[in-house]
Parts: sequence; structure tokens; C-alpha cells
Amino acid sequence: MKYENIVVRVGRMPLPGALTADAYEYCAEPLEALKPGEIRIETIYASIDAGARGMLDPSANYPMLLRPGNRVYTSGVVGRVIESLDPAFVPGEFVRALSVTRQKYLTVAPKRTLGVRKVDPSDGPLHIHIGSLGMTGFTAWIGTFTIGLPKPGETMLVSAAAGAVGSVAGQIAKAIGARVVGIAGGAEKCSAVVSRFGFDACIDYKSDGLGEAMDAACPVGIDIYFENVGGAIQKLAMERMNMFGRIIMCGQVSQYDGNGGGSEGGPNLMNVINRRLNLRGFISSDHMDAFPAFERSALSLVRSGKLISYATVTKGFDQLHDAVNSLTQGRNFGQQVHQMADDPMTSDC
Amino acid sequence: MKYENIVVRVGRMPLPGALTADAYEYCAEPLEALKPGEIRIETIYASIDAGARGMLDPSANYPMLLRPGNRVYTSGVVGRVIESLDPAFVPGEFVRALSVTRQKYLTVAPKRTLGVRKVDPSDGPLHIHIGSLGMTGFTAWIGTFTIGLPKPGETMLVSAAAGAVGSVAGQIAKAIGARVVGIAGGAEKCSAVVSRFGFDACIDYKSDGLGEAMDAACPVGIDIYFENVGGAIQKLAMERMNMFGRIIMCGQVSQYDGNGGGSEGGPNLMNVINRRLNLRGFISSDHMDAFPAFERSALSLVRSGKLISYATVTKGFDQLHDAVNSLTQGRNFGQQVHQMADDPMTSDC
Repeated sequence: MKYENIVVRVGRMPLPGALTADAYEYCAEPLEALKPGEIRIETIYASIDAGARGMLDPSANYPMLLRPGNRVYTSGVVGRVIESLDPAFVPGEFVRALSVTRQKYLTVAPKRTLGVRKVDPSDGPLHIHIGSLGMTGFTAWIGTFTIGLPKPGETMLVSAAAGAVGSVAGQIAKAIGARVVGIAGGAEKCSAVVSRFGFDACIDYKSDGLGEAMDAACPVGIDIYFENVGGAIQKLAMERMNMFGRIIMCGQVSQYDGNGGGSEGGPNLMNVINRRLNLRGFISSDHMDAFPAFERSALSLVRSGKLISYATVTKGFDQLHDAVNSLTQGRNFGQQVHQMADDPMTSDC
Repeated sequence: MKYENIVVRVGRMPLPGALTADAYEYCAEPLEALKPGEIRIETIYASIDAGARGMLDPSANYPMLLRPGNRVYTSGVVGRVIESLDPAFVPGEFVRALSVTRQKYLTVAPKRTLGVRKVDPSDGPLHIHIGSLGMTGFTAWIGTFTIGLPKPGETMLVSAAAGAVGSVAGQIAKAIGARVVGIAGGAEKCSAVVSRFGFDACIDYKSDGLGEAMDAACPVGIDIYFENVGGAIQKLAMERMNMFGRIIMCGQVSQYDGNGGGSEGGPNLMNVINRRLNLRGFISSDHMDAFPAFERSALSLVRSGKLISYATVTKGFDQLHDAVNSLTQGRNFGQQVHQMADDPMTSDC
């Protein structure tokens, strides 16, 4: 077989604000013949993660910065094997790979590549494997269970609760008996955070009286704050933390906006002492040795119906900029996914 | 024997700034006869701790707030037994008690009171037992060894390095092989932090170019920051933390000044995520189960000459306000101590 690959690369470094189509280039490139142990995957879905915009913004102080011509990273893809020189993988099977680049045809050696495994389409939509069961779910799991350590009856507040990480964090804390309160933008999202993801309450950060709303939703204070946003919400949450509270520093999406993010002052840290708080930053890729434990745990929750996934899908191989904008503009609900090929498991393709 | 006691109580709640003499009252009060198991101590020295001013300022957000008429707390006293109904204690012996109130004659039951033990005058000046070997030393030890966890070769930055807690923190980190950099006010103090306490370097926060001075003194960044001051120094230190750095949140003395402390914004917390930092607040009294381990460790360092103590002594039973001012105005070097009776172990009494 002879294919031509398409590799997604950074085009022009964007100006502040929404991305335009020229932020990415879709480069036709030849494919080499497979080497022993390699397989070739046609990418169906690739994850869009909260850092996608920050990686294109030198002022965002994001952990990874891309430059024009660089290949574009994704925390995970799911697709179908089209060629294989690894006897454990057969063409036609569905597979998932973590922390790879966006290409029409991805070549990986399963034994030497992170998180390549077959996926069972009966577990749910294919993109669940790059969402709740992928790096975003893993991020929620590491933050919740290595830093937050919620106990039954404790209150965990989750910002960006309608997003991929926040929605999983709330559900897994709820599954162990915590009271879970979300923060999301708009009445519709808040309602869905409660009805679909099963949070006990959800606060609309776009409405007035955010502090009062936090007080009402967390009447005995906050034991754990899963921090995805930073800014004003961070300050209000810090003031409401209980003694010995934990703050899971996962993201500060309010600071990635291409306008000199990372410069806005944070909360006064006096309460960190008074209330013996523990704030800890983390990046899930530092914890990959825990991925198998996560996978067993999350798969069991998915199969028992305790971990629900939703995805917002942007279709079209060349629509990556719009998929990123969907995330940064808060148009997504749940995981934001970029669909790069037809999904044979859905009826509309 | 019949004594009249003098108990130190809060007088008038102070205005912002230095304390005046009427901040405290020295109240003559009768003493009851001892009950079985009790001893009576004539207080020679009482510790003055960083929170002494914050406890009189409702706006300081300090963990403990005193009101007019309240007895005044101290983290420790050292004195001499003058009466005893506990057969293990004999009049004339020197003893130390932790977390008690300031009185001319302190009545305690050693078996039911925190940290009452005999002290050996050959270990050094009597006040060492309420300094390096008391709650201030314990605070340094808990912060350093339960949160900071310095390893040989790592860089630990210590603010308020000439103070009671900071000077011990730096010395115990140095004793396990860390590189230790202090921050103190003025060239004289900085010089003494290096020459007396053995820090590798000390930065004068009163001089210009504090950030550049930190860069020069910490050429490979900061692994551990022992935070006693908050404010501008906190922000500069945060920007220079290395990956996986730890911030020991012990105090924010810059925020206790009676001018609405605790309201100044803190550093942007983006670096907490990027660099996987861990900030943890603590109060040493939460950790009293570790006190015996601390005591063995610190006493061994004192006896081997690796933990040096200095104290600034304010003499005069009714001079507590001046002793507190000495601390808040940075007139002290090392432990700030309030001398309430003659010290038979020093030649000038």
C-alpha cells in the first residue's frame, strides 16, 4: 500500500484572541515503509486540550511552547490500524495512542510508544479513550487522588466543571462519597453539570454574586479546590477553604489568553498558613507510572455507569483552529475533540 | 510560703504601629496553694514570637486574636522551681514549659502540661530552651523536615534569616548538606547571618536590586523557600523556584503590621503548575507528637556545635511592649526574649 500522509504543523504564530485558519498548516508528506514492530493508524479523533492555545503564546508561561513549523502535539488519538508489523495488532482494530502528534496516518511502535492499546468499541464512543480514559481523565485522577485526597462527606469545588478534566474530577470524587460543587459558565452548562455529570451543585461564574453563590453551595466551606481557572475565582475559593484544605493546581486557563497571561496577581497567601492549606501544582505526564492504575480504576467506573463522558466534536481534518477556539471560547461541553476522519461507529458517517 | 503573683494581660487594643506601654497590664493576683502534682516556677525568660503583634490586630488575620483582659500567651518560658508537689521536680532546678501564659509565678502540673522538663544549664544560655530548643526551633524543624525536605546540594532560601525561626531553619538545612541563602534587613545582620549562623550567603532586602541579588546568590535557582515574610520577597522567590520546589509557608510578617494585613495580593500561581511546586502552610502546634524527635535532633546539633543560638533580651518584667516592638521593628537578632526575673546563670545579674 502507498499512502500520502498529512502532518499538522504550526503555521503563523497567532495574535491574541481567537485563532484564524493560518495558525496551522496541513502538510502533505511521504510515508516511509513500516519497520518491524511498527503499526500505522488512521487517526479518527484527536484530543484538544486546555493548553492548546497557551502553547502558541510565548507570554502565557505555559509549560510547552510551539513555534512555526513544529508538529502539533495532542494528548491522545484514537483510530484504526491500517497496517501492522506488530503481530499483536491486526488491521481494522481500533487503537488509542497517548501524547503523539496530529497526523492523518500515525506510525508508532506499540512496544515503544506511550499508551498504545486496543480499545473496545462497546465501552462507549471511541473518543472516550482520549477523554475520560485518556490523559484528561488521568489528569483529573492524579490531581484528585494524589493531591486532593477527598474523603466521604468533604466538599470539593471544581472550576471549569463542564470541561474534560473538571467533569471527570467531580465524578470520581463523587464516586467516593464527596460532596462536589462545580463552577461553569452559563445556566445551561451549570444545569448540565448537575444533571449529566451528577454534581451536587454548580455555580454560574457569569452571574453576579459569585462569592455569595460559593457560600450558598458550600455551606460548610471548601475542603478541596480543583483549580483549572485562576484569577478572581481562585481568590474567592482561597478565602473559603477549610482548615487543612488542599488546592489541586491543575490549570489557570484565565491566564492563557494571549494578553500577557500569568501576570495577574494571585490571592494573598496568609490563609495558606492560618488554615494549613496545601497547594500543589502538577502535570499529569510526570506521573505516567500511575497510568495503569488509573486505567483500571476509570474503566471500572465507566463500565458501572459512574463516569459519564461527553464530547464536543469539531469535524474536518483542517478545522483544528476552530476546535481550539471552541475550547477557549467555552463552546465545548465535556471533552473537546477534533475529528480527522469518519467514525465508522457513529451512524451519521 | 505566700507569694503574690503578677499576671500579664492585654491592656488597651493598640493602634497600628509600635506598641505603647498600655498595651499590656501587669495584674497583681493571689496565688492558690499548690495541688498534688503541681509545681510553681518563677519565670526568668519568656519567648516573644512573630505573632505577638498580630495577635493584637483584628485585621491581621492571624490564627489567634487576643482581647483586653486576656492573659498573654507565650510559646515558652524557662525559670526555676520554687515549690513542688511533684516528686520529680525539686525547688532550685531549672525547668522549661511550652505554650503557657506570662506570669511572674507559673503554676503547672508537669504530667499534664505541654513540654515541661528540666533543663541542663551546661547546654548554653537558659533561653536556648525557649529558642532553638523550644517552639521556635521546633517550627523551623517541622517546616524544614516535613515540608521542605532539603537534600544535600539543594538550595534553600530563608526569609527573616536573622530571626529565631529562620536562623534555625538555615542551620539545620545546612547541617544536612543543603546550600542555604538567607534574606535579612541591613548589612550588619546579613554579615552576622553568614558569620554566626553559617549561611552560605545572605541578601539584604533593604538594598536595591533584590531580584538580581537573589539570582546571584541562587545561581541554579531555589529548591526550597522557607517563607516568613510574604509581600514583594515572596513574589521574587516564587519566580525563581526550580521544578518540584517546595515553599514552606510559615509566616508572612510583612502582613501583620496593623494596617489591614493579609489584603495585599500574592504572586500569580501559574508557576505553581509549570514548576510543579508544593506550597504548604503549617502551625507547629499541630505537630506536637513530633516534639520529642525534634528535641533529640536539635539537642544533638546544639551539643555538637552545629546549631548556634543568639537571643536579643529585653529586661524588665513590665517591658513586654518594648520586647514586642524590638521584634516587629527588626531590632532583634536571633530569638527575641523577655526577661522577667534575674538570671542566676549570667554574670551581670
